[in-house]
Amino acid sequence: MAGHVSVTIGDIRAAAQRLQGHARRTPLLSSPFLDRLAGRRVLVKAECLQHTGSFKFRGAWSALTALGADARGVLAFSSGNHAQGVAYAAALRGLTAVIMMPRDAPAIKIANTRALGAEVVLYDRTAEDRDALGGALARERGLALIPPFDHPDVIAGQGTVGLEIAEQACAMGITSAQVLICCGGGGLSAGIALALQADAPDMRPRTVEPEGFDDVAQSLAIGQVVELPLRAGLCDAIVTPRPGRLTWPILQRLCGPGLVVSDAQALAAMALAHERLKLVLEPGGAVALAAALFCPDHIAGEAVIVTASGGNVDRAVFRRALDQGDIHADCGT
Amino acid sequence: MAGHVSVTIGDIRAAAQRLQGHARRTPLLSSPFLDRLAGRRVLVKAECLQHTGSFKFRGAWSALTALGADARGVLAFSSGNHAQGVAYAAALRGLTAVIMMPRDAPAIKIANTRALGAEVVLYDRTAEDRDALGGALARERGLALIPPFDHPDVIAGQGTVGLEIAEQACAMGITSAQVLICCGGGGLSAGIALALQADAPDMRPRTVEPEGFDDVAQSLAIGQVVELPLRAGLCDAIVTPRPGRLTWPILQRLCGPGLVVSDAQALAAMALAHERLKLVLEPGGAVALAAALFCPDHIAGEAVIVTASGGNVDRAVFRRALDQGDIHADCGT
Repeated sequence: MAGHVSVTIGDIRAAAQRLQGHARRTPLLSSPFLDRLAGRRVLVKAECLQHTGSFKFRGAWSALTALGADARGVLAFSSGNHAQGVAYAAALRGLTAVIMMPRDAPAIKIANTRALGAEVVLYDRTAEDRDALGGALARERGLALIPPFDHPDVIAGQGTVGLEIAEQACAMGITSAQVLICCGGGGLSAGIALALQADAPDMRPRTVEPEGFDDVAQSLAIGQVVELPLRAGLCDAIVTPRPGRLTWPILQRLCGPGLVVSDAQALAAMALAHERLKLVLEPGGAVALAAALFCPDHIAGEAVIVTASGGNVDRAVFRRALDQGDIHADCGT
Repeated sequence: MAGHVSVTIGDIRAAAQRLQGHARRTPLLSSPFLDRLAGRRVLVKAECLQHTGSFKFRGAWSALTALGADARGVLAFSSGNHAQGVAYAAALRGLTAVIMMPRDAPAIKIANTRALGAEVVLYDRTAEDRDALGGALARERGLALIPPFDHPDVIAGQGTVGLEIAEQACAMGITSAQVLICCGGGGLSAGIALALQADAPDMRPRTVEPEGFDDVAQSLAIGQVVELPLRAGLCDAIVTPRPGRLTWPILQRLCGPGLVVSDAQALAAMALAHERLKLVLEPGGAVALAAALFCPDHIAGEAVIVTASGGNVDRAVFRRALDQGDIHADCGT
């Protein structure tokens, strides 16, 4: 995708129109117990309550509803939240969805994606070239590729979270706050940043990443893209090696400084979301809440807003979070 | 409280006015996985996301805002959700809240109630007369007693859940459905029943109780109040020996037949709410969902609406729910 493609607030408002009545308007929650722990008001945008358990449904719906009338179907590479968002959005639109997943993806994720109506094509990630396979399949069957973040309609869809944050916080009397965003490739962060710039200019978007996967925080700190080695991590939903081509210029212009939390802090935030908000979060969906609770000295203002971006977590990992005691270490950039 | 006191739809609409901007308008959630399991659409009114983790905040706020301007404070007996709802509502209103709890109540519940700003008065439930103690304290300090369900303003507050269900379901195109309600003393069930009678007359409210604690189902079946021995149960939030004096005539006129689920089914519903809705439910808050999922033959219609009334659950009990496999036994009245 060329760097000159841009996303505007008009694109986000148009996506919001298309999402109206289809995506959920998720609540902005809070708890006096979390406020006390953080030392300021903490407002939690509960995107784990979105269809398919993460904000990814918004970008998927936005992209699918922007396709031409001749679109026969869509193709996505993903073993996670993007796959489920695309699969469900396609099913609701009556479009074919082909999801390419590695043959060694967890059986439950393959089963869930199929149950949402998608055709799952498995490939061998050690022996096969995913992009070549996907490209051939897309051409052969007339499918449109829906990338997980580096696509203007996807970014515009995620940006609707920012429109809602601005409106819901304003209704609570809050117009100035830092907005902490769980960040992988930067689609959600870039979309929210553009929405806030237009509708809540006194709100400052800041990315939050897991320790060891802070390519965006490092990139923001030095002003150019840093690429980290790709490897597995507990916060699997937001583990990416570098910001996207489309998302990076937006992040650089509007976001930062980046925040970083440990896996232990993400697990502790999951336990507190369970106890105090009655929400199920996955590790990657809990890093922004973790930063708000455990990094108070790196945040400014009387209120902080956090995205709780997803809740698709294995029971084993969730048990680890419940077992974990509260962690109160400081952290930062 | 005399049996001739009644609650009207006007009382519920007035309570809704007082709750506006203070109680949360909780979302009506769903999952295609739960729909498939139940064999019909399942819509879940997520009151576990209400302030203090249960619908009880609504009744408490309704009752507190109906007090005269000379009210100095309130008194409640409770070790559970009602205590937290009253404590938090009083704190927000700047009123003193005295909560009488048994000396052997779990330390965490006492700590939580205190943390919400209430004064906790402990009593010995084997040696002291709670009602006499509470009455003396209320007179001495000029406190108004806020009962957990048998009070018109409390029932009117809980009834606002029904107004929202009618409106939210209608917006989804659903005007006819059975509405399953987690039922203890019947405040929530009676309030919802009155609201639906006015705003969604084709919706049928039905109570759901745990096996062995089905005083309301038995009462509805024979047309007069059945009293069961008071004892402890997993679904502690909705364990009551008999329907209330005010709630019973409303339940008898508008609700039923009652449904009954096992503890194992409540735990299985908790696990499915965790997995498919990203919600934390307590056992007593999961019985209506359990009935929808595991008692399909006792329910009629293409859609069913359930209340998920609370999420205040110990980690140990929640772990039991996660450990539990899915249960598909049938159940009924």
